Amino acid sequence: MSNANPPRLAPADVERTPLTVRFCETDLMGIVHHGNYLRYFEVGRVAWFKARGATFDHWEGFQLPVVEARLRYRKPARFDDELVIETWVSERRGASVRFSYRILRGDEVLCEGDTLLACVGPGLQPRRFPDFLRRVLPDLPGS
Amino acid sequence: MSNANPPRLAPADVERTPLTVRFCETDLMGIVHHGNYLRYFEVGRVAWFKARGATFDHWEGFQLPVVEARLRYRKPARFDDELVIETWVSERRGASVRFSYRILRGDEVLCEGDTLLACVGPGLQPRRFPDFLRRVLPDLPGS
Amino acid sequence: MSNANPPRLAPADVERTPLTVRFCETDLMGIVHHGNYLRYFEVGRVAWFKARGATFDHWEGFQLPVVEARLRYRKPARFDDELVIETWVSERRGASVRFSYRILRGDEVLCEGDTLLACVGPGLQPRRFPDFLRRVLPDLPGS
Amino acid sequence: MSNANPPRLAPADVERTPLTVRFCETDLMGIVHHGNYLRYFEVGRVAWFKARGATFDHWEGFQLPVVEARLRYRKPARFDDELVIETWVSERRGASVRFSYRILRGDEVLCEGDTLLACVGPGLQPRRFPDFLRRVLPDLPGS
Repeated sequence: MSNANPPRLAPADVERTPLTVRFCETDLMGIVHHGNYLRYFEVGRVAWFKARGATFDHWEGFQLPVVEARLRYRKPARFDDELVIETWVSERRGASVRFSYRILRGDEVLCEGDTLLACVGPGLQPRRFPDFLRRVLPDLPGS
Repeated sequence: MSNANPPRLAPADVERTPLTVRFCETDLMGIVHHGNYLRYFEVGRVAWFKARGATFDHWEGFQLPVVEARLRYRKPARFDDELVIETWVSERRGASVRFSYRILRGDEVLCEGDTLLACVGPGLQPRRFPDFLRRVLPDLPGS
Repeated sequence: MSNANPPRLAPADVERTPLTVRFCETDLMGIVHHGNYLRYFEVGRVAWFKARGATFDHWEGFQLPVVEARLRYRKPARFDDELVIETWVSERRGASVRFSYRILRGDEVLCEGDTLLACVGPGLQPRRFPDFLRRVLPDLPGS
Repeated sequence: MSNANPPRLAPADVERTPLTVRFCETDLMGIVHHGNYLRYFEVGRVAWFKARGATFDHWEGFQLPVVEARLRYRKPARFDDELVIETWVSERRGASVRFSYRILRGDEVLCEGDTLLACVGPGLQPRRFPDFLRRVLPDLPGS
């Protein structure tokens, strides 16, 4: 995985979002079903945008669908665990941005991964990020 | 519950939809999480409409949100169980329709319940059913 | 619905749990899918138990499956809404307990309902509540 | 991605599983939420095992948790789409196996990816595959 290590980033660049595991997120193995981590990543990504003022009320005329995802599961999370989702931007281009994530329980890394999002218009064709997003997305190598 | 007993209906009025329990639908009790049965009911309801020609490509200008739901859980379903969802209309009014459901594994009834759906326009105000739906919804006491 | 009105209860008896709507909880109608409210109720119920010291580490030898559920949907919740789940015990018997819920956005009631839970042993046969639960469950008419 | 191209495999090695998109699997963008594709992959994987006689009734003493996942989303799936999940083994080692997947709508590839599963014992330590799995898992480079 291309996960930049978040400690290399300034703390302000990493969003830390608490999340408590729900009962319905477990499966018969007694652990969090692996499909839920993409939902946890999304919770972290939404929090990242909100904390930087990019709220969803002027989220019009474009969409940011996920076009790639990678996950590495290190240890299982369990019911009622108190987790932290770390979210940061690890790559940025003209019409796409990669977010990286770590799911932590205390000091333990349970899961890490990234998702690539494309900026598209109403017909799903690529377009540049709208201004209010360009202001919050960091300039990174590859931008 | 007001569930009309489906055997009183002509067989043609009851839609029987097979469904295999997915691994991700179980929880740490080793059984299907109770929240999934509303999704199973919805699968049955969609199949009911499709089998009567009410396909979703001309599903425009109105919506059918669920405004009430009741469920009675009798026995747990488990991973990989082959279920049948029985779906029928148990009540119909000018701008609402109640569907009733039974989830079966062989002869065993695992869950039964119903959902009331309102017909609403774009601003969520009640409206009469569009013609293509009025043609497939049965005339029932209370219609 | 038999929902006791929560204001009749002492404030200490009602658990108020904040919850932010996740993107993945919406559907193509642009609102929270109705199946998710049972999951929200569960979040409120888990919080109710935890706040009263009934934590899940000594949750052994019995289970509390949901055997009945009722929901009334009043107004749709939407992506990123900040909700509050109100949870309280509305009925208690020797081997079952009913929780009631209201989902609020500010002063608006979006959804209300209840779930009946049975206390069962390993073979799913009814059993009395374990002592640590009997201590936190209130004595109510019907107990 | 390391996806071997399934046409290089004998047709018997690829499991093709039909799946109809459920309403509850869409999100407010009007498309299938990206988190659901890991659940679709799982449906394909379970069908792969079952078609080869590795049923889940003697699935005891070991587990196959997902330890890595990769997804590439090419085109969105929509409500009521009739999809096919293609599933095959693309890599096999002593205590792990990689499954690859393609989600198709007719001839269009909507999503492709893979998941790496580890064979572990009750304490989550790696162990060899049980005999009944070793018989169905193909010998591949890297085995």
